[in-house]
This record gives sequence, structure tokens and C-alpha cells, in this order.
Amino acid sequence: MRLRHTHGAEELISESPYVVKDPEDHKGRWNEIFGNDHPIRLEIGTGKGKFLVETAAAYPDINFVGVEKACSVLLKAIRKYEEAGISNVSFLAVYADSLSDIFDEGEIDRIYLNFSDPWPKKRYAKRRLTSERYLPVYDKILRKGGSLEFKTDNRELFDYSLETLSDNGWKITICTYDLHASEYAQGNITTEYEERFSAEGHPICKLTALRPG
Amino acid sequence: MRLRHTHGAEELISESPYVVKDPEDHKGRWNEIFGNDHPIRLEIGTGKGKFLVETAAAYPDINFVGVEKACSVLLKAIRKYEEAGISNVSFLAVYADSLSDIFDEGEIDRIYLNFSDPWPKKRYAKRRLTSERYLPVYDKILRKGGSLEFKTDNRELFDYSLETLSDNGWKITICTYDLHASEYAQGNITTEYEERFSAEGHPICKLTALRPG
Repeated sequence: MRLRHTHGAEELISESPYVVKDPEDHKGRWNEIFGNDHPIRLEIGTGKGKFLVETAAAYPDINFVGVEKACSVLLKAIRKYEEAGISNVSFLAVYADSLSDIFDEGEIDRIYLNFSDPWPKKRYAKRRLTSERYLPVYDKILRKGGSLEFKTDNRELFDYSLETLSDNGWKITICTYDLHASEYAQGNITTEYEERFSAEGHPICKLTALRPG
Repeated sequence: MRLRHTHGAEELISESPYVVKDPEDHKGRWNEIFGNDHPIRLEIGTGKGKFLVETAAAYPDINFVGVEKACSVLLKAIRKYEEAGISNVSFLAVYADSLSDIFDEGEIDRIYLNFSDPWPKKRYAKRRLTSERYLPVYDKILRKGGSLEFKTDNRELFDYSLETLSDNGWKITICTYDLHASEYAQGNITTEYEERFSAEGHPICKLTALRPG
């Protein structure tokens, strides 16, 4: 009997050495997983992994954790990582809510959110990864002075995020409505979606926010 | 012979005891003008003075300077001040460029920009009061930790300002696209323009930015 695609992806992920199992057991001791004391950065919603793997390759002295709940895309990210010949990435197949059970206070150096689901309807606003539901989680696991970097092509989500972050005590230090035409274009590592959308001539927004503490 | 209106306004302003003459002579010694050592806040583009005079009345332990180059409206602001029965306001009929010749480094506690001219055409962008032309002036005269507060109904100017401020090292701590519906509505003192525009149902944007230093 042929396994369904998603089932197959789930099985493969459960067998992958790069996906951390029982991640709560490593809270406060993630440096043991990487075998060094380098800073740890998270990408929440890693998707197919282009940004994560290319960023990890560009910054070998930093560790990266890719968080992705959708197994079929996570599998693609893992394959990309395997092909990259680097060793500073781990993966988590968990929801963002659970991150404060998985990482200790201040254990994370930086969080990346790239092209997160905009959840445009107001009644689903709490599902946006920059909503008040998630900001306390990020604040808790980020180190003092740590930051959140967020890219999107969705202007409504971007404006919502600026407002929500500042309302909650985060300080906006970078805000651009056309990243690729800005001074921040240099060194920018694109996602799959960003590549395609930008090639079609759509501007990309980016913000950086410092945690409140 | 009847004097032209503007000529009359200019004469009246030059005679007003509330408009500081030769303001460069007071650089670093503005506390002498107010006769106390209270913090000094500037409104650049005071217009008819509603915001300035009401804010000064609400905060008697803070000194305010209203900066307005247009004599006919400045005259109205001065009259409003005279009628308010308060003593913590001075006026300057100067261009914003000259403020760093008039105030010493760190002499100003806070700067307010309210409904500044949007100068929508790109070739006039340098005339916007939140352009890179003016930010170094504000940075210089503001105290360490001092802030800029900016309100506008013009969304293009607001977005431009968020981008320009953050590009230049200012940290955005408040960002709302609908001030009157936000948590910052309480204690908000409106301008003449804000009253009218808001009554017509248009949202007001507000940001606060901390100086880079």
C-alpha cells in the first residue's frame, strides 16, 4: 500500500536526525545540541528553507533553528540543509505557541519571520505571527537587546505589525517599504516567495524591532 | 493708507513681548527667558496655536516654544496664548533650519510636529519636516533620550516619516494609524485641523520616535 504524501512526510520527519524530538527536554541547554555556545537564531515559518539554509551558510558562527509545522515543506527544507554541507541548523515541527516551553528565557539571539500568513480577516488576527498572542513568547525567549526581523509583501500585515509591536513596547529600528531598493538590500537573503514576488515587481517591506526588556 | 494684512501681522509680531527677538542670543540660556529650569518643548509649525496653548495649560511645569514662520497664523496663536492666562509659552518666527543656532545641544526635551505640510511631490521631499534635512537639527537640540512626536492625517507622509526616522537611527516607540481609536487617545490634545478632519471621519496617524543618541 502506497502511503499518503503527508503521512510519508511525517514519517520521514520523525526519523530525521535534524528534527529535534522532545524539544522541551533541551530547554536552557540548546548549546548541547549544537555542541558550541554560539548565538541561536530562530526562523518561525521556515517553509522550504531557502532563507534559513542560505543564512546559516553565510553565518557559520551562528546556530539556526527552523520552525515549521507543515511537514511537506519542512521536508524540503531538511533536504536543502542536507545538500548544503553545513552543520549549524536544527529543525522543529512545532507551533509558535510552544516556543517558550522549548527555549529558556533569553536563550534566543534573534527571531526571523518571513512572509508569514497574513490572516487578513479581523476575526483571525490572533493567528498572525506578529499578534499580541505571540509577542510575549518572543519577548520571553529573546535575550536582552534581542530583535525580531520581519519581511512581508503584505502591506496590511506590515502596518498591523508596526502598530502591534510598538503598542507592546517593542522599538522599531528598521522600517522600509521597499527593501530591495533600500540601503538594507545589501546582504539581504531572499526567501523562495520573495524571489518570485519581487521579480514580478512588487515591493517587499521589512522591519526590525528590539524587544521591550 | 491702510496697511496690507501681512504687513500688519509682521509689525504686530515684531512688537509682541511673547515673540523672542534675536533668539540666537539666548542659545544655552533659554531657562532665563522662562525664569525657571523646567524642560522646554518645541512645536514646529504651531499654526493657530490650539495644540500649543492647550498643552501648555495642561502642563504648567513644562515650558513651550511655538515655532511658526507664517505671521498671520502666528498672530492668532499669540492671541490665543494671551487669552489663556498662562505664562509658560514663547514664540519664534523662524525657519526650522535655524533651530540649532537658537538652541544648544540637548536644550530641548521634546519636539512636536503636527500636521506638517506633506509636500507630496518627490522633488520637494527635502521640505518635509521629517526629512533628512531636518532630523540632524532635531537630534542636536534634543536631550539624550528626548523624543519627537508627530501627528498627521496624510498616510504617505506618515509612512515616509517612519521610514526616514528609522533609516536615520531614530527608534519608533509609538505607531498608530488611528490615534483616536487607540489606547493613546486619552490625553490627546487636538489641533484645529485634527478636530475638523477627524470629525469628517478620517483617521489620524501618530508616531513617537526616540532620538538616535
